[in-house]
Amino acid sequence: MSQSTANHTVTVSGWAAHDSSGKLTPYTFKRRENGVKDVTIKILYCGICHTDLHYAKNEWGITMYPVVPGHEIVGVITKVGSDVKGFKEGDRVGVGCLAASCLECQHCKTHQENYCESLQFVYNGIFWDGSITYGGYSQILVADYRYVVHIPERLAMDAAAPLLCAGITVFSPLKEHDLVESGGKKIGVVGLGGLGHIAVKFGKAFGHHVTVISSSPSKEAEAKERLGADDFILSSDPQQLQAAKRSLDFILDTVSAEHPLFPLLELLKVKGTLFLVGAPDKPLQLPAFPLIFGKRSVKGGIIGGIKETQEMLNVCAKYNITSDIELITPNQINHAMDRLANSDVRYRFVIDIASTSNN
Amino acid sequence: MSQSTANHTVTVSGWAAHDSSGKLTPYTFKRRENGVKDVTIKILYCGICHTDLHYAKNEWGITMYPVVPGHEIVGVITKVGSDVKGFKEGDRVGVGCLAASCLECQHCKTHQENYCESLQFVYNGIFWDGSITYGGYSQILVADYRYVVHIPERLAMDAAAPLLCAGITVFSPLKEHDLVESGGKKIGVVGLGGLGHIAVKFGKAFGHHVTVISSSPSKEAEAKERLGADDFILSSDPQQLQAAKRSLDFILDTVSAEHPLFPLLELLKVKGTLFLVGAPDKPLQLPAFPLIFGKRSVKGGIIGGIKETQEMLNVCAKYNITSDIELITPNQINHAMDRLANSDVRYRFVIDIASTSNN
Repeated sequence: MSQSTANHTVTVSGWAAHDSSGKLTPYTFKRRENGVKDVTIKILYCGICHTDLHYAKNEWGITMYPVVPGHEIVGVITKVGSDVKGFKEGDRVGVGCLAASCLECQHCKTHQENYCESLQFVYNGIFWDGSITYGGYSQILVADYRYVVHIPERLAMDAAAPLLCAGITVFSPLKEHDLVESGGKKIGVVGLGGLGHIAVKFGKAFGHHVTVISSSPSKEAEAKERLGADDFILSSDPQQLQAAKRSLDFILDTVSAEHPLFPLLELLKVKGTLFLVGAPDKPLQLPAFPLIFGKRSVKGGIIGGIKETQEMLNVCAKYNITSDIELITPNQINHAMDRLANSDVRYRFVIDIASTSNN
Repeated sequence: MSQSTANHTVTVSGWAAHDSSGKLTPYTFKRRENGVKDVTIKILYCGICHTDLHYAKNEWGITMYPVVPGHEIVGVITKVGSDVKGFKEGDRVGVGCLAASCLECQHCKTHQENYCESLQFVYNGIFWDGSITYGGYSQILVADYRYVVHIPERLAMDAAAPLLCAGITVFSPLKEHDLVESGGKKIGVVGLGGLGHIAVKFGKAFGHHVTVISSSPSKEAEAKERLGADDFILSSDPQQLQAAKRSLDFILDTVSAEHPLFPLLELLKVKGTLFLVGAPDKPLQLPAFPLIFGKRSVKGGIIGGIKETQEMLNVCAKYNITSDIELITPNQINHAMDRLANSDVRYRFVIDIASTSNN
């Protein structure tokens, strides 16, 4: 579809999955010419989000093959359209999940493009010109500048890449609940993966008491020694759960597998909030009693708006927060995907796109 | 237990259930003497809440028989302790679910006694002196004045009784979400029973657009013609649900039977809230996607604090809001309970306690 669009003349090398095997292979495609509101970006690094795996394997049934995944994109601007504001050639920039939105609805007008009904994602979306979007597992991106952010100088570009999705996904709920740069609360983080480990870093940087809640006993040492978490609760241990009842102000739940909410709700103080950012395929079991008797809330949210993403990156620069990553070359993508499916990564794979520009 | 407590010397006639048949029969018991912080109340009316049915039949497995139900109590003060403030003999007063709380925790100190961990209910609770509490299906109540409210002159006492539980239960979430006396929002009310019909009255009185959502087609005419609801959605009709997607700011869910949350969540705008006040025994199915993609919340809460209950009654007086009731005599309690179990009541049974003071 993209190839048939008239002004799609920029030849790009990338990596695509072509069927539900999810196997990625080198793939050459076309992107649109740089428009007046576009910037062209030489991609340097792209994080591998678990969402990429879902799309590559069509696990949500909505993949349009060939799919070029990747929405944790960082690189350098090589071309700037005449109507672009705030960006110039050579700028270190990032692009996350968003490729386009209507720019006119109440959500777009209040910097919450991520809830626009006409939102299009950076891959497996359909852009305004009718072309299917291709993501960051590729060497060049053409992006509307209104969905591009600056990567602060202090942040390493490879380790900053996961901030564009994993980072903003955990930052936005913290900000909504007045937990950014305002310490002293007791926060729980469920799951210690790509999202969870950044949430722990934020929580500690802002001066909160951070408890990691996990079903894996092995995560206790990691959480405390590597990431500085204050406490650990093994979610399968009733005694640990009982001892911590009504102790937490806020829990960020990053788990996308099915898991019981009852013990998590009981860990919350009265009026506490359980915030879901993982998206299990099947419904979770929600017991009404701990909600009602504890005046608790279960909320959800997806990434953040562009303005908030820039704010998050600036805060990361201030506190020197990036993702812990395992840097790979493009020919290691499939192996990395396999490891990711087994949760075997500390804590995010990032593809060094430029390292093999001849691929 | 109550009978063995030394200062329990006030003989009271009431109605109690003695086993899981739930059948109520006349029952004579003792209440404590009027203490320095107590008022004695001649009970005139008591509403029948669905909770009473659960306790009478021990459906939650926590009933201490004999149980004298009733937590929608109105009457007139006949005796006032020396340390009581704000009440005098002859005052028209109400008592709801609360009999005692610690008065020292952060919840008690901020007028949210209803979330105190040491909370004791007005029946089937254990009072400070070790006695089991007996509720409003009786002729006399001795109550700590800190859990007593004034019934405004404008309100009929029989129709005001259900406000003490059903009324505050739906008022408190509306207040928390800035929906009291501030119109212009689109509100949904799920279930048109004792709680739901008062919620519709509040919503209309405050100038909101009110949609009743029910699984019973017969409720449409009732909702619109009798209660003035603006709209009706049959929750089993996919077309009606689809047409109303993303249209409501707030939904108050009063249903205590199992029911699907997915269609309700989809009715909410971005950032909308589904507030549960009904308490199904089994967990509800909570799909994560409509929470995450719509930044929606599911919350819960139980009744309100005493100060808020008084505020609610004052607002009811201002807008002339009471419950629609069916007034019964005590010898009709069991029949009323049977009808209530079948949702056959418009919309709350109220016992005319004084009508048969010789029973």
